[in-house]
Amino acid sequence: MCVFCDIIRGDLSAHIVFEDDVSLAFLDTRPLFPGHSLVVPKEHLETLSDLPQELIGGFFSNVQRLGVGIERATGAEGTFVAMNNRISQSVPHFHTHVVPRRRKDGLRGFFWPRTRYGSEAEVDAMASAIREAVRVVH
Amino acid sequence: MCVFCDIIRGDLSAHIVFEDDVSLAFLDTRPLFPGHSLVVPKEHLETLSDLPQELIGGFFSNVQRLGVGIERATGAEGTFVAMNNRISQSVPHFHTHVVPRRRKDGLRGFFWPRTRYGSEAEVDAMASAIREAVRVVH
Repeated sequence: MCVFCDIIRGDLSAHIVFEDDVSLAFLDTRPLFPGHSLVVPKEHLETLSDLPQELIGGFFSNVQRLGVGIERATGAEGTFVAMNNRISQSVPHFHTHVVPRRRKDGLRGFFWPRTRYGSEAEVDAMASAIREAVRVVH
Repeated sequence: MCVFCDIIRGDLSAHIVFEDDVSLAFLDTRPLFPGHSLVVPKEHLETLSDLPQELIGGFFSNVQRLGVGIERATGAEGTFVAMNNRISQSVPHFHTHVVPRRRKDGLRGFFWPRTRYGSEAEVDAMASAIREAVRVVH
């Protein structure tokens, strides 16, 4: 029932670019730019928050390695690495996008539309709320 | 000469939301949405590819923790976690954006404009090139 699990099991074909014991990486079929790949944990986990501590180091080492590899393979000048958790998440199996980028490639979306905090009190209150919430995350 | 290093040294004020030995997180001053924070390594490293293996696990555990904390503090329904490496990277000190998201919040950019590979041969060639490049990354 999960297309990424189908790919991991080999029931659905994909262009695999990297694999180890805990992660698999393959080309996105509707890339932002050619070479755009997805890195997924082999275990079905929904979002970044579900990734167990013992997998985080290895998983993001693979993301780092993919970034370097994709840049070299495509002759890109940089990369965009991103994760959508729940909102805008097309497949509910955690995945990291690794997208090769070039100057003037037309991808602007991310830095639009920036806003501003209304007052210093508003930004102080937001910082305090996050500080406290992060403190109690275990 | 680096604004994030200035913040880390305490020479420039910021709304700090999390800190440990190797990372610092603070509110983005021009947020996509209120609560949008940046997580940075305290060491001046330029991009994801420069993050040493021994820092990766701890750094992304902090990103994960920030994601959960920001979601709770802002009552968000999801998060967008992203890194620009070189292209679209405003400050050349590696940073991860953690952005709270809600349904119908108007942020569409990332999934636009998707493209398609021209042929099966083209996608095969791309997958092979990346596979080989990733294989030799050390």
